[in-house]
Amino acid sequence: MEGQTEDVRLGANKYRERQPIGTAAQSQDDKDYKEPPAAPLFEPGELSSWSFYRACIAEFMATFLFLYITVLTVMGVAKSSSKCSTVGIQGIAWAFGGMIFALVYCTAGISGGHINPAVTFGLLLARKLSLTRAVFYMIMQCLGAVCGSAVVKSFQKTQYERLGGGANTISSGYSTTSGLGAEIVGTFVLVYTVFSATDAKRHARDSHVPILAPLPIGFAVFLVHLATIPITGTGINPARSLGTALIYNKDQAWDDHWIFWVGPFVGAALAALYHQTVIRAIPFKSK
Amino acid sequence: MEGQTEDVRLGANKYRERQPIGTAAQSQDDKDYKEPPAAPLFEPGELSSWSFYRACIAEFMATFLFLYITVLTVMGVAKSSSKCSTVGIQGIAWAFGGMIFALVYCTAGISGGHINPAVTFGLLLARKLSLTRAVFYMIMQCLGAVCGSAVVKSFQKTQYERLGGGANTISSGYSTTSGLGAEIVGTFVLVYTVFSATDAKRHARDSHVPILAPLPIGFAVFLVHLATIPITGTGINPARSLGTALIYNKDQAWDDHWIFWVGPFVGAALAALYHQTVIRAIPFKSK
Amino acid sequence: MEGQTEDVRLGANKYRERQPIGTAAQSQDDKDYKEPPAAPLFEPGELSSWSFYRACIAEFMATFLFLYITVLTVMGVAKSSSKCSTVGIQGIAWAFGGMIFALVYCTAGISGGHINPAVTFGLLLARKLSLTRAVFYMIMQCLGAVCGSAVVKSFQKTQYERLGGGANTISSGYSTTSGLGAEIVGTFVLVYTVFSATDAKRHARDSHVPILAPLPIGFAVFLVHLATIPITGTGINPARSLGTALIYNKDQAWDDHWIFWVGPFVGAALAALYHQTVIRAIPFKSK
Amino acid sequence: MEGQTEDVRLGANKYRERQPIGTAAQSQDDKDYKEPPAAPLFEPGELSSWSFYRACIAEFMATFLFLYITVLTVMGVAKSSSKCSTVGIQGIAWAFGGMIFALVYCTAGISGGHINPAVTFGLLLARKLSLTRAVFYMIMQCLGAVCGSAVVKSFQKTQYERLGGGANTISSGYSTTSGLGAEIVGTFVLVYTVFSATDAKRHARDSHVPILAPLPIGFAVFLVHLATIPITGTGINPARSLGTALIYNKDQAWDDHWIFWVGPFVGAALAALYHQTVIRAIPFKSK
Repeated sequence: MEGQTEDVRLGANKYRERQPIGTAAQSQDDKDYKEPPAAPLFEPGELSSWSFYRACIAEFMATFLFLYITVLTVMGVAKSSSKCSTVGIQGIAWAFGGMIFALVYCTAGISGGHINPAVTFGLLLARKLSLTRAVFYMIMQCLGAVCGSAVVKSFQKTQYERLGGGANTISSGYSTTSGLGAEIVGTFVLVYTVFSATDAKRHARDSHVPILAPLPIGFAVFLVHLATIPITGTGINPARSLGTALIYNKDQAWDDHWIFWVGPFVGAALAALYHQTVIRAIPFKSK
Repeated sequence: MEGQTEDVRLGANKYRERQPIGTAAQSQDDKDYKEPPAAPLFEPGELSSWSFYRACIAEFMATFLFLYITVLTVMGVAKSSSKCSTVGIQGIAWAFGGMIFALVYCTAGISGGHINPAVTFGLLLARKLSLTRAVFYMIMQCLGAVCGSAVVKSFQKTQYERLGGGANTISSGYSTTSGLGAEIVGTFVLVYTVFSATDAKRHARDSHVPILAPLPIGFAVFLVHLATIPITGTGINPARSLGTALIYNKDQAWDDHWIFWVGPFVGAALAALYHQTVIRAIPFKSK
Repeated sequence: MEGQTEDVRLGANKYRERQPIGTAAQSQDDKDYKEPPAAPLFEPGELSSWSFYRACIAEFMATFLFLYITVLTVMGVAKSSSKCSTVGIQGIAWAFGGMIFALVYCTAGISGGHINPAVTFGLLLARKLSLTRAVFYMIMQCLGAVCGSAVVKSFQKTQYERLGGGANTISSGYSTTSGLGAEIVGTFVLVYTVFSATDAKRHARDSHVPILAPLPIGFAVFLVHLATIPITGTGINPARSLGTALIYNKDQAWDDHWIFWVGPFVGAALAALYHQTVIRAIPFKSK
Repeated sequence: MEGQTEDVRLGANKYRERQPIGTAAQSQDDKDYKEPPAAPLFEPGELSSWSFYRACIAEFMATFLFLYITVLTVMGVAKSSSKCSTVGIQGIAWAFGGMIFALVYCTAGISGGHINPAVTFGLLLARKLSLTRAVFYMIMQCLGAVCGSAVVKSFQKTQYERLGGGANTISSGYSTTSGLGAEIVGTFVLVYTVFSATDAKRHARDSHVPILAPLPIGFAVFLVHLATIPITGTGINPARSLGTALIYNKDQAWDDHWIFWVGPFVGAALAALYHQTVIRAIPFKSK
C-alpha cells in the first residue's frame, strides 16, 4: 500500500518538476518564480568543459559574420556616388539590426548570443555570467571583429582605405560630449532590451517574451543606427569599433576611439542598474 | 486509504489549476473565458504599492527613449539637403513604429506599455485601468517626451531650432479638417490594434494573439506614419506632440497644437467604442 | 475503492481531453487530425446570428482602413516631384503588406480576416465558408474600399484627381496579357500563403504555422507589390481596384478594370486547386 | 488493488508520453533529447510514396515563385533611369529575403522548404535527407528557377535581354577570388542559420527556435543580399543563378557561372562542418 501511495505521489511530483515552465507560465503563481542565483565570479569547472570553449568559438564566429556582412554593406553604400543606387543608409541600419537578430537567434542557445562586449559587461554586472567567461567572450568578440573587417578589406584594399572602412568617428558638427551621449543612450536602449528579453521572471509571465526575444534585440540595434549613424556612425559595440579601427588603422579612427568603449560600457552599466533596481527592485527585497 | 485517495485527487486538481491556460487555449471551451471585471475608477491600495510607481517610472523611461530615438532620426533626415543620403522618410516611419514595437515588448509586463496618452485614454474608457493610474501615466508620458526632446536639442541647439525640432504641424495644402481627420483615423488604427492585441477573449482562442502582440502594435504606428507624415508629420500621440512643441517652442508649433490632443483622443474613443460595442457586443450581453 | 479508481481514471481522461492541441501537436499522431467538414453552401442559421453581422462589419471596417492608409500613402508619394523626399515605392509596398498583416491579426478571430474578395473566393472554392457568407463579405469589402478611397479624396480633391487616385492601370510598355498574368500569379502567391497559414492539418504539425500566420500573409502582399507595382500598380484585390476606380472614376481606370477581377479570381482558383489537389491530395483520398 | 495501482501508473506513463515536447522543452532534461538517426543514402520506399513526389512538386513551385517575384523586382529596378522612383536595391534585397521567408513558411511542412540546391546539399552532408531525395530536389529547384525566369522574360522580352535578366555576374572592380569568397561566406551565413533553425536539440531547449524558424532564414537571405549585391548580384543559390543564366543566355552570364555553383556548395559544406563539429560536437560523442 505504501508503495502504491508512493507511486501516486511520485507521479504528482514528477509532474510538477516537468511542468512546461516557459509556456504554462501565465497560470502559475508569481511565487513559483525563483530568482536564479548570482553567477560566481570564478567558476572552477568552467575552463575544463567543452561547452565553455564551444561558446567562445560561437561568439568569435558570430562577431566575425556580423562585421563581415555589415562592413561590406557600408562599403557598398560608400562606394557609390549616388546613394539612390545603393541600399542606402537605411540599408546599413537593416544590416546591423538584421544580423544581430539572425545571430542572436542562432547562438542564443550556445553562448547566450552576446556578440558585443557591452552586452557581456551589462550581464556581468547583473551577475548573469562569471568574470572568466566575460573576459573570454570579450576577447573572442574583438578577435572576430578584427577578422571580419580584414576579410572585407581583402576584397578591395584601396577602396576600403579611401572610404573609411566603416570605422566609427564623430561627424563634423557634433561635439565629443554629444557623441559620448549618443553612445551611452544608444547602448542603454540595446542593453535594456536584452535585459527585458532575458528576464526569467518575465518569461514566466508574458508569453511573447521567450518567443520573440531575438527580434526586439535586433530591432533595438536597427533603431539606434537609424538615429545615430549621422552622429558617430553608431558604435554601441566596442568590438565592432575596435575591429574596424584596427583594420582601417588611420589617425582619425583612433582620435575618438575611447568614446566607443566608455560610452557603451557606461550605457550598459546604467541599463543594468535600471533593470536590477527599478524593474526588479532587487536591492529592496528581503532575502 | 483516505489519504491516498486524497493524494490522487489533489494531484488531479493541482493539474487542472496549473493547466497552461495561455497555450492550451484552442482546446478549451469558450465558456472557460471570463470577462475581467471593470477596473474601479479609484483603487485605494494602488498609490501605496511599489509596482504602481515602478509602472509610472517605466512609462516615463519608455516615452523618454521613444522621443530621443525618433526626434534624433527626424533631425538626421531634416539636416541633409539630399534625402537620398539619409534614412529617408521611410526611415522616420520605421523609427516611430520600431521603437513602439521594442518598447511595448520591454514594458508590457511592467506598465502595460502604453507610451501614449491616447492609448491610456482608450483603455481607461474600456475600464482596463483606474482613473488614478491613467492620470499618473499621462503625466509621466508627457514628462518623458519633454526630456527626450530636450536631450536631442542639447546635441545641436541651432540645428534643432532651424529644422523644426520634429514638432507636428499641418503641412501647407491641407486644411485643418483634413489634419484633424488624419489624426482621428490614424489613432483609431493604433488603438483598435491595441484592443485586438490585448483582448483576453481572443487570447483564449487565437494562438497568434498573445505571442505577436507587440509586433502589430508597432506596425500600426509605422503604417500610420507612412500615410500621414506628408499631412501632419503624424502625431497620434499627444505626449510626442507636446514634448516636441514645448522644446521647439515657436508659434508654428502651437497654432494647431489642439489638433494633436483632440484628434488622438477622439480616435481612441471611437476605437474603444467600436471594440466594446461591435466586436465584443458588451452592451448587449445579459449579465 | 471503485470510486477511488474512478477518480484516477477520470483524472487521466480529463487530461487527455484537455491536452493543448495547438501546441502539443508535434508529439501527436497524425491520426489525431480530422479533416474539417466542407462548409454548406447555405447555412440557414447564419443570417440570424449576431456573429455573422459582426464579421461583415469587421470586413467592412478592415477594408475601409486598408484603402485609407494605402491610398493616402500612394498620394503622398505621387505628390512629390522627387521620390527621395517621400517614403518611395518601397514605402507603398510596405503600406499594403503591413496593413494586411495588422488587419489580418486584428480581424482573424472575428471574420477570418479576408479583406479581399479574391481570398474569400479562394476559400469558398475550398468550401471553408458558405456561399451566403462569401457574398456578404465581398459586398462589405467593396463598400469599405469605396469609403476608404472617398475619405482620402476628401482630404485633397484636386490632387487626388490629378495624380491618379491610386487606381490600377496597366503601365505603358506592358501588354494586357502581361498585366493579366501578373495579377494571376500575384494572387496565386497571396492565396497559396493564406491556404498554408490556415491549413488545420499543418497547424497540428508545424509549431510556427498558427503563431506567425498573419506575418507571411502580410509579407506575400508586400512582395507581390515590390514585383508588380511597375506593371499594374498591383491589384490582387478586386475590392481595392474597384474602390479606387469608382472614386477616381475616369476612363483610364475603367479600360482595363476587368483584369483586376478576372486575374485575382483565376489566381485564387488556381491556388485553391493547387492546395487541395497537390498539397492535401483530397481528391485521391478514400473516405 | 493491483489494477488500481496499474491505472495510476498508467496515467503517469501516458502523461509522460504525451508531454508537449515542442513547448515544454525547457523543463526537460537534456537526456530526453535523442539524436535523430542519419537518413539512409537510398530509401527504397521513398520513390513509391505520394508524399515524396508532392515534396518535389512543392520545391518546383516554390522555386518557380521565388524566381518569378525576385527577377520581376530586379527588372523593375533596372528599367528605371532614376533608382529613386523604384523600390531600389534595398527593395531587391527584401524581395529575395521576404520570398524565402514566405516560401519556407509555406513549404516547410511539405518538403522541408529548401528552395535552394546549396541548402539541400548542406542538409545532405549532415545526413538529414537521402541522396535520392536530394538529387530530385535539386533537379526540381533548377527546373522551377528556369520556368520562373522564363515567365518574367515573356512579359518584356527586349527589356529583359537589354537589362541583364537578373543573371549573376562579378561586378567590375572585384576579382574572381573576391566573388567566390563572397559566395562562400554568404552561403555559410544562410546554411548555418538553416542548421540552427532546424536543430532538433535546440528545438527541445529554446522556445523561440521552432516558432520563428522561417523568419531568421529569410532575414539571412536579405542580409547577404544587402552586403553582396554590389559584388556578384548575390547568388548563394545555384538554382537561382542557373535559371537566370539559361534564360538570359549570353556570354557574360556564363563566364563566371561556375562560381555560383562552387561558392554556394563550399559555403554549405563549411556550415554543415561547423554545425556538426563545433556546435553539436557529433564526432567527439561516445555512442
